[in-house]
Amino acid sequence: MTAPRFGHVGSRDLALFTDRYELTMMQGYHDANHDRLATFSVYFRSLPPDRGYAVAAGLEQVLAALESLEFDADALAFLADQGFDDAFLAELESFSFSGELRAVPEGTLVFPNESLLEVTAPILEAQLLETLVLNQVGYQTLVATKAARMADVVARHGNGQTLVDFGSRRAHGVDAGLKAARAAYVGGFDGSSNLLAGERFGVPTYGTMAHSWVQSFETERASFEAFADSYGDDAIYLVDTYDTVRGAERAVAVADERGVRLGGVRLDSGNLIALSKAVDDVVGDAGIVVSSSVDEFFLREFFDAGGVATAFGPGTALTTSGDAPSSGVVYKLTAVERDGELEPSMKLSPGKVTYPGQKQTYRVERDGSFVRDVLATRGESIDGRPLLETVVEDGSLVANLPTLSDVRERTRSQLERLPERHRRVSEPDAYEVRISDGLERLRRQTERKIEDRER
Amino acid sequence: MTAPRFGHVGSRDLALFTDRYELTMMQGYHDANHDRLATFSVYFRSLPPDRGYAVAAGLEQVLAALESLEFDADALAFLADQGFDDAFLAELESFSFSGELRAVPEGTLVFPNESLLEVTAPILEAQLLETLVLNQVGYQTLVATKAARMADVVARHGNGQTLVDFGSRRAHGVDAGLKAARAAYVGGFDGSSNLLAGERFGVPTYGTMAHSWVQSFETERASFEAFADSYGDDAIYLVDTYDTVRGAERAVAVADERGVRLGGVRLDSGNLIALSKAVDDVVGDAGIVVSSSVDEFFLREFFDAGGVATAFGPGTALTTSGDAPSSGVVYKLTAVERDGELEPSMKLSPGKVTYPGQKQTYRVERDGSFVRDVLATRGESIDGRPLLETVVEDGSLVANLPTLSDVRERTRSQLERLPERHRRVSEPDAYEVRISDGLERLRRQTERKIEDRER
Repeated sequence: MTAPRFGHVGSRDLALFTDRYELTMMQGYHDANHDRLATFSVYFRSLPPDRGYAVAAGLEQVLAALESLEFDADALAFLADQGFDDAFLAELESFSFSGELRAVPEGTLVFPNESLLEVTAPILEAQLLETLVLNQVGYQTLVATKAARMADVVARHGNGQTLVDFGSRRAHGVDAGLKAARAAYVGGFDGSSNLLAGERFGVPTYGTMAHSWVQSFETERASFEAFADSYGDDAIYLVDTYDTVRGAERAVAVADERGVRLGGVRLDSGNLIALSKAVDDVVGDAGIVVSSSVDEFFLREFFDAGGVATAFGPGTALTTSGDAPSSGVVYKLTAVERDGELEPSMKLSPGKVTYPGQKQTYRVERDGSFVRDVLATRGESIDGRPLLETVVEDGSLVANLPTLSDVRERTRSQLERLPERHRRVSEPDAYEVRISDGLERLRRQTERKIEDRER
Repeated sequence: MTAPRFGHVGSRDLALFTDRYELTMMQGYHDANHDRLATFSVYFRSLPPDRGYAVAAGLEQVLAALESLEFDADALAFLADQGFDDAFLAELESFSFSGELRAVPEGTLVFPNESLLEVTAPILEAQLLETLVLNQVGYQTLVATKAARMADVVARHGNGQTLVDFGSRRAHGVDAGLKAARAAYVGGFDGSSNLLAGERFGVPTYGTMAHSWVQSFETERASFEAFADSYGDDAIYLVDTYDTVRGAERAVAVADERGVRLGGVRLDSGNLIALSKAVDDVVGDAGIVVSSSVDEFFLREFFDAGGVATAFGPGTALTTSGDAPSSGVVYKLTAVERDGELEPSMKLSPGKVTYPGQKQTYRVERDGSFVRDVLATRGESIDGRPLLETVVEDGSLVANLPTLSDVRERTRSQLERLPERHRRVSEPDAYEVRISDGLERLRRQTERKIEDRER
């Protein structure tokens, strides 16, 4: 009998977590003796719908991957089987990342055309990274952004409600469940229901009870009694299995009878705004957790309508970034070595403007408020705070990793400095990303050079 | 300096890939001496928008997880740290799944309220599985369904075009990238760009070249020459880096000069329908791969407008199930042991009808066509083919696992038998799922019994 395979992706599997064409090109570069330096830039062409900003996230995973990327004997045997050449595979045997990585710190707000990462390395190495980098940075950035939007609505319209990721079950696979918990925390959430996120990343974990708890006892009351006996003070009771308001009354009564302090009740269905008000009259000072279909649009409506809650548990909308499930970040070649120098490069796409060369983003602030960013060439001298930092040199980590709390704090503090019109959850104003004179000149030069060559 | 953490999820991590409330309830069941048998059912309340069917997928991963689920010393130490009790943790030390799993085979078409899986086990065990089962089955079912919709459009309107998953970079994390490749194959795709999917699941892998290949050489022509020299016959050239039609002409010219057979060209931007026709005139018998923004709606439009292609590479829309990024499958308690018997159970939700008890789905066919399904109690005798099979008994696998090709063939053969009005990509007719008299009676009885108890 064949054993079932889960399909885990461990550190030794990351080298094969790539599109076949990356290896095809790598072999081609090898055959053509073309392993020159190249720079690839990771950026948004445009932000997803209704996004006025994105919160960069996932850099730590890229750094971990860079340290562990290698082709072991199994991987090489598989690639041989897939038709790759012995000479090329012999080269892969000693593969390790030897290049440079510049990046904005996680928790940095980014805007269209601004590099989240810039990789400069021999093209065989840089090419391999594309799939994995986009996969990790794209997804975490998407979720951190979604989380930040919710956290921002709570900060502006709520009164300090706790935000907890409840979406592991709806995330696309186990990596997404784990990384969503991390990214939600980066975006400003207080924690996650996912225990592995606690174990792996120190994300605070939260949990109440499910309908199955209530149903598994003879009556709702019996289930609450058992829970009170087991957990004592501060337990939270799910009250909507049969009748929400009656359930809340029972939770109060059971806590009272058992002589324990009621932590709160959770509402998971029905008209949550109306029910939250009704239940608020019942539970007094105890908490109200609202956990069905929560996203930033719901939160705005909830607060506008005077809903009452002490915590929210967004799930599906958070971990799938439901209204915008893909990020559109790209990994584009922007420079390649020619005659010993990095020569700026770009694709000529009708209607799409792209910026060649290594770059730097400068953020201009006034009175504690972000005014604009300026996208410039790497060497240019521009007013403002440069965002990209060198984190890996000659293949080695050269920067200190911030803690996840530091990253979360960076997101919060940057959001506070972004004018509110760019933080609206619907149709925000676009933040200005000015192109420096130097970069605009370089773009035109590069375009002309390509047109001349391709004539 | 802190080492960066990727956050891998290995087989020993699966026990913690769960919502904290599952463990909270498990400890509560333990404290209350309440570890009785329970049945949980995994099903869709309703299908995602525009879906006339769903393709069940992900069972193999559930089976693999059941075999490996355990709490090792690290997990137990973490849980102790999170405040769980020693007595409960001592019980977890010997945790292993001892129950029954019934499931429809992967590749089975399923409809609302029909169980994809039914778990019957001591409630501590069954409760733990919820998060992981929904995470794996929900996502793969979503992608297999999306893939099947595209494969079905090609089968009905195309002429045997190859379909390849190009979406690993946009998938939500590495597990999603890997599982999407698997699920796309289940849904009828021919392969994936993801090499790890080839290594792990035997999914055929495909790949061409990226814009970076072309840009990294002095000219597009030079890049094609190097590729022809490296790959010889049947290579595929990406032709839209600078000018699509000229790129195609160059690919033809280079193949001719180098004396190699042109495999084909790939189009990745612009008006793909118009460009495919223009390029078709240039490349003759060689292939045309279309790979930007491909989904079932695009395919229908492409064929309607006379677009020409030999292969498609859907990416983002496939691996994020872009138009419906969450599946809505639920894991609900439907029966619980009382006085030594499994007693049917259900949640009373206003507006939501749920069906209690262990169940079976019967599929009624006539003249090789699916006519309707009948949802019945497990013991009921009903005409039609029963879909749920027992795959795990007393914690051990008792069924033979089909190969992935067998699963793919099951999807194809079931789709062919589903009348076309249920397979429309927009606003399909709902397929009939009839509720058996026995099940309807049981639902009313259960509802009354709960209302009596909760009065």
